Amino acid sequence: MKAELICIGDELLIGQTINTNAAWLGEQLNMAGWRVNRTVCIADNRQDIINALNESAARATLVIITGGLGPTRDDITKSTLCTYFDSKLVVNQEALDRITGFFEKRGLPMLEANLSQAELPELCTVIQNTRGTACGMWFEKNKVVFISMPGVPYEMQGMTTDEVLPALSRHFNTPAIVHRTILTQGVGESFLAEKIADWEDSLLNEGVGLAYLPSPGAVKLRLSAYSGGTQSELKAKVARKEAELLKMIGEHVYGFEKQSLQTVLGDLLMQNSATLSCAESCTGGYLSHLITSIPGSSRYFQGGVICYDTSVKINTLGVPEDLILKHTVVSEEVAKSMAENVREKLNATYGLATTGIAGPDGATDQYPVGSIWIGLSGPNGTFARLFKFGNSRERNIQVAANSALNLLRKEILG
Amino acid sequence: MKAELICIGDELLIGQTINTNAAWLGEQLNMAGWRVNRTVCIADNRQDIINALNESAARATLVIITGGLGPTRDDITKSTLCTYFDSKLVVNQEALDRITGFFEKRGLPMLEANLSQAELPELCTVIQNTRGTACGMWFEKNKVVFISMPGVPYEMQGMTTDEVLPALSRHFNTPAIVHRTILTQGVGESFLAEKIADWEDSLLNEGVGLAYLPSPGAVKLRLSAYSGGTQSELKAKVARKEAELLKMIGEHVYGFEKQSLQTVLGDLLMQNSATLSCAESCTGGYLSHLITSIPGSSRYFQGGVICYDTSVKINTLGVPEDLILKHTVVSEEVAKSMAENVREKLNATYGLATTGIAGPDGATDQYPVGSIWIGLSGPNGTFARLFKFGNSRERNIQVAANSALNLLRKEILG
Repeated sequence: MKAELICIGDELLIGQTINTNAAWLGEQLNMAGWRVNRTVCIADNRQDIINALNESAARATLVIITGGLGPTRDDITKSTLCTYFDSKLVVNQEALDRITGFFEKRGLPMLEANLSQAELPELCTVIQNTRGTACGMWFEKNKVVFISMPGVPYEMQGMTTDEVLPALSRHFNTPAIVHRTILTQGVGESFLAEKIADWEDSLLNEGVGLAYLPSPGAVKLRLSAYSGGTQSELKAKVARKEAELLKMIGEHVYGFEKQSLQTVLGDLLMQNSATLSCAESCTGGYLSHLITSIPGSSRYFQGGVICYDTSVKINTLGVPEDLILKHTVVSEEVAKSMAENVREKLNATYGLATTGIAGPDGATDQYPVGSIWIGLSGPNGTFARLFKFGNSRERNIQVAANSALNLLRKEILG
Repeated sequence: MKAELICIGDELLIGQTINTNAAWLGEQLNMAGWRVNRTVCIADNRQDIINALNESAARATLVIITGGLGPTRDDITKSTLCTYFDSKLVVNQEALDRITGFFEKRGLPMLEANLSQAELPELCTVIQNTRGTACGMWFEKNKVVFISMPGVPYEMQGMTTDEVLPALSRHFNTPAIVHRTILTQGVGESFLAEKIADWEDSLLNEGVGLAYLPSPGAVKLRLSAYSGGTQSELKAKVARKEAELLKMIGEHVYGFEKQSLQTVLGDLLMQNSATLSCAESCTGGYLSHLITSIPGSSRYFQGGVICYDTSVKINTLGVPEDLILKHTVVSEEVAKSMAENVREKLNATYGLATTGIAGPDGATDQYPVGSIWIGLSGPNGTFARLFKFGNSRERNIQVAANSALNLLRKEILG
């Protein structure tokens, strides 16, 4: 079944806002069995909206509209939908109660404009918004379903997950679909593809699809069973395929679905009553930032030393000056010493260290830009591994930090 | 003049890739005097591409197409453009030489598919790509200009800046336009708007526009003169307006155009032969990460201590335990001590410290989530300032780090 998205807002067209809603909705709809044909961004302009609605309705059975539902004058989506569907605005009591409560709870004064957000087209089915004041709307016309939602991503996402996707599944009586996302780190798309080539070919006969979703340093694999059984039959089929896949590439898999390496590692540390400290040279704080971006990370993260200057490696961290003179700061020996010292000084179960050439400067004959040593010290001893990434400073920092997290994850798991 | 964008690629529709090209091109075209009417994303599908070209050409005088120019089988934009413009593919010698050189320089084997990238429609004007192997194409039909570019952002951006925008300006003989972007930190959009309300009203009569472009903790103000003089007259007019604006809100301005707070601060530190070290509690490494994201930051950044656990504040950083017991870790006294100690221990000109409640947990009666003390120690002494941000952990970390950078920038400037 075909769907189209219409994203409304001047800010999207002048480049002030990047349209993340289209990507998020595209993924959700794709996973729910919809084929998104086209995404259109238009301005907050009455005629443009009506034209876009007509065009999309001629091509698709589902049209999702985001944006233009705010309380200010330039938000004209709701009144334009009234015109398009030949309806009139009436107060929706549930919405009014919710909006009033929203402001009371926050001790904020409610404006006339907010009150008018409870006025909604008479013939739509109202979709309540538990995260904000703008309601969603469900219309039907000539067997096409139109859904209008606010453009604020947090509100739109909540509404889609909680209300829209279940309602679409009921309305269109869509067949059962089961997905499973398997997360890998440290190997490329083509490496994985080659390793599982024969198995991948056999998937087709079993009605299971496989998608590769690469990002810097990581590849997601998504197994999807779209047809050929009930929900629980498909679930069992995907679980069998997942088990087969894990046998082939399990060593590269760090988690499933929406997990991040830092959440997986954090959970592992807590399960083991273990703590972590970091000594960062080339990653410059990014590794610690990833770890501390998780709420509650203070339960296992002690802290770290960012030893950008060599003097900090020596004086604050206690790396022997001789060792640096003998091997230079980018070396296995210094990476190991950094990990050992930060573990000991910060009194943690594990110490992780990074030292290398993020670029663009600093390359040596031995170590081109992108060469990064990662050191790890723990109850079973200390070691370091050399990684070779690319030429982009930003990407080298990102991939090095993720590689460090994964190295420790594997160490804890033995 | 009206423009439309057509972005081609299955990955955009299934949500694997966020369409940053549309936002980037939207901003560039907007600044060049174009009104982007509509952005359309479609799949790598011949009929969809032809339909989209027809529709956009009926509404706009400029149609920019991105994506689908790669060497693989699913990239069909070039052959579809051949059909649409009734042209045939011929080898472009300049492109062939460039592509051959591209692979030779990197010592990579060249594939048949790459060679075919030098085959281009006979009637287009070829736009060379200095950053990759896919050429751009310029077509004209019924006074509408069509420009096709690769979807890789780095390649598309280089081509747009170096070739496309100058060529558009020549072709359409567009009037002179002058922009100036002024960057502020630490105050909101409505605060700025109120402070400059009368002046802003007067801009209209002078043919100057003002746009507010807010992001977390920062607001960009863009002055634009679109008409009423030569390039140099408009430049002078915008410079006068900028000077007036700086008189009113100069204390909140940290830079201009594409500068970041970390580059402005880095330049200031180098000009003053000064160095910096950071003691981070609630920002957890993000402050140091911002600083070290700049190539060459090792010239002024010594390093830092991420003192997430209280024991690290005491043992590694040397904050007196009594001070913490008396005032708690989130306090003016501890923020000052952290800044002083990291400055002294890491032997830097300045020490910056953050300690506060990033959230969601940890709030106290005195300090709700979002309360963050920033300490600064330097040649002129030590002080700390309390900031109150919001409820989002991610945003609190971001805005606190930027506020710390700005606090030091102001301190250095006196």
